Amino acid sequence: VEAGDAARLRDLAEPLHAADIADLLEQISPADRRDLLGLYSPEIDGDILSELDESIREEVIEALPREVIAEAVRELETDDVVDILEDLEEPQQELILGALEDADRVAVERALSYPEYSAGRLMQREVVVAPHHWTVGEAIDFLRQSENLPDQFYHVILIDPRMKPQGYVTLGRLLSSRRDVALRDITEDSFRTVQATEEEAEVAYIFNQYHLISCPVVDENDRLVGVITIDDAMNVLDEEHEEDMLRLAGVGDESSIADGLVATVRSRFPWLFVNLIAANLAALVISHFEATIASLVALAALMPIVASMGGNAGTQSLTVAVRALATRDLTGSNAWRVIRREAGVGLINGLAFACIMGAVGSFWFGMPMLGAVLGAALICNLFVAALAGTIVPLLLDRLGLDPALSSGTFVTTTTDVVGFFAFLGLATVVLT
Amino acid sequence: VEAGDAARLRDLAEPLHAADIADLLEQISPADRRDLLGLYSPEIDGDILSELDESIREEVIEALPREVIAEAVRELETDDVVDILEDLEEPQQELILGALEDADRVAVERALSYPEYSAGRLMQREVVVAPHHWTVGEAIDFLRQSENLPDQFYHVILIDPRMKPQGYVTLGRLLSSRRDVALRDITEDSFRTVQATEEEAEVAYIFNQYHLISCPVVDENDRLVGVITIDDAMNVLDEEHEEDMLRLAGVGDESSIADGLVATVRSRFPWLFVNLIAANLAALVISHFEATIASLVALAALMPIVASMGGNAGTQSLTVAVRALATRDLTGSNAWRVIRREAGVGLINGLAFACIMGAVGSFWFGMPMLGAVLGAALICNLFVAALAGTIVPLLLDRLGLDPALSSGTFVTTTTDVVGFFAFLGLATVVLT
Repeated sequence: VEAGDAARLRDLAEPLHAADIADLLEQISPADRRDLLGLYSPEIDGDILSELDESIREEVIEALPREVIAEAVRELETDDVVDILEDLEEPQQELILGALEDADRVAVERALSYPEYSAGRLMQREVVVAPHHWTVGEAIDFLRQSENLPDQFYHVILIDPRMKPQGYVTLGRLLSSRRDVALRDITEDSFRTVQATEEEAEVAYIFNQYHLISCPVVDENDRLVGVITIDDAMNVLDEEHEEDMLRLAGVGDESSIADGLVATVRSRFPWLFVNLIAANLAALVISHFEATIASLVALAALMPIVASMGGNAGTQSLTVAVRALATRDLTGSNAWRVIRREAGVGLINGLAFACIMGAVGSFWFGMPMLGAVLGAALICNLFVAALAGTIVPLLLDRLGLDPALSSGTFVTTTTDVVGFFAFLGLATVVLT
Repeated sequence: VEAGDAARLRDLAEPLHAADIADLLEQISPADRRDLLGLYSPEIDGDILSELDESIREEVIEALPREVIAEAVRELETDDVVDILEDLEEPQQELILGALEDADRVAVERALSYPEYSAGRLMQREVVVAPHHWTVGEAIDFLRQSENLPDQFYHVILIDPRMKPQGYVTLGRLLSSRRDVALRDITEDSFRTVQATEEEAEVAYIFNQYHLISCPVVDENDRLVGVITIDDAMNVLDEEHEEDMLRLAGVGDESSIADGLVATVRSRFPWLFVNLIAANLAALVISHFEATIASLVALAALMPIVASMGGNAGTQSLTVAVRALATRDLTGSNAWRVIRREAGVGLINGLAFACIMGAVGSFWFGMPMLGAVLGAALICNLFVAALAGTIVPLLLDRLGLDPALSSGTFVTTTTDVVGFFAFLGLATVVLT
């Protein structure tokens, strides 16, 4: 396909959705991508640009001729242009802003004036409104005469004379009501508004919790400035999840499968470095007990079991807590009960594994006391793991930090240190 | 509040959304929940039931009088009733089915005949259709005369005489077009259908990838049987994420923060048990080198560093791969390039940490050769970790299994075994 046959390529790409073409561009190698863009550039439109992953969008925009980009962004709605702009460098931003029509440029610049990751960045400014004293008939006539309705809209927002939203009416309800019904009598119960400065994660939560389809955005004076639709909220939800998952694993949360070698190394090295310090801390604990290990080398073989079980149990508690914090299922009112339950789970699992490994340790090395020490250390470490895995994310959240961020290293360091200390310390007291 | 004052409780709960009342019920203790339900039961409606987490829904249904439940489910749309029913035991299912009107019961039973987690379970049967030869005027008149339109709908689906969907028209477009325009001239490009037997994860992917708002569902003869709306798809996406996260952490994927002590122990024990076996494998490797450790106890302090760095690096690669597989960003066409990149990242990070720990190891114990062995083991283990973290989920996916399931234990077992073997094996050869 890369034989330079532009016409053939166009035919092949014709039936594809913009999102699929963007995926294709992300999955091929950088060299292939350059070749493909060279051939295909006249066909690249705004939809493809806005579907591209941020990590390669800059590269693609650089590879495209100015006219193609200008043409592409002019077709897009303002929220999509904002989405493209916010990740670009200054000169590329200027280039795109310059290509927009005046009215759109003003709208985009105003959206960019809201903080990053806020509702103001997410919303579209194109809204469909009606005075709240109108009837169904008046609204329908108004809509049928409007020239410039947005591509997608699901509600007519009712506003008072000062642009404050009062409720909304679904188009379905509008169509099925008699012409003389007052709009304010058929508004939806689900109506709520968000502030333009609200964080987008909060917006996604509201959509998911209250099953919203669209939500009006208001400024600090409660005046309507835009509307957020569910497809944007779904996108944010998806990104928030990705962030949580990647942060829990200690990977930079902007990293993507399309990143190059250097970007990938850069996003992973810092976390591994933090882990290295933590691991050295554990090593320091062990080296304190060198005399004990020298007198009973079997301890060296068994000690990773204590650490590994603690690390795993801690990760279990941690993941459940981080997820529950994200979905607001873990709050001040049940935190204490969840901590107590986790502590109970840690103790019960600790007892169970203490019995199993106590027996294994006794038979393996023929020393019942070694088995007992191993079992006691497991109980202790699984209990601490359960507590740390729950309390660390709760504390981070209380401090206003992301509970997923770096709590993994925190928890495993705790379980490593406690595990080695408990096991080797007990062994020192009991066995030597 | 729990002083038995039912009227006061009703006033307090009045302004709350059903989802918030459900959250409240989830967060209080089982004893409080029983008391609350006793007082509040006449007010429990279908919306609250369908917002409840599965883990406590059964408990709540048992605590409620039959008439309340019958009343509650009768108000719900069929897809919500299906959602409640599929997690209940047989006798409770019968109870609810018996409370439904005949037509609804048939609809619910038909939905339950589709496989679990399929589009057929997710869809609502209430659809708004129009013959594809109609004009805008005919469609509007038809809608205005319909008595029984669904609560929420966004599209009118065009069908041919054999009930095959041909396209759809948004209500906004319908309202803003002239009455004599043919419906088939204003259909949306985004139109696509899904099979009723399609998996719900696939449906959520399609909604997210193509920014759909609603999607018609067809049977094996391509005839329209229902429609899925974006709020249901958003829910599925949310659940899929939760599943991936919990599975990666080795927690049963149905577990919830509201689970009791026993349920929690039961959902975590099996994974810890698998990890125990893995940890014993690592211990077995170490015990093979007892003679080496006995002659140089410093090895015992340093060996967890190698294992821990490998485990962390493996988890990084694994999480990125699992996430990319879930979003279809990692496919057959770029798998090979991603594997090569991960291998490169593993080597580079390995080299970097080898230099750091080589120096630390040399100075700490005053033995340059010990530092060299530590460094070499780190390079080896980070390389293997990167490969295992990428190849294991790819293999699981190729085999049709969930790449998140149990791959974490797989990868850390590999890095533990390789790490201990490389470090202690090299030490045996070089240092003794």
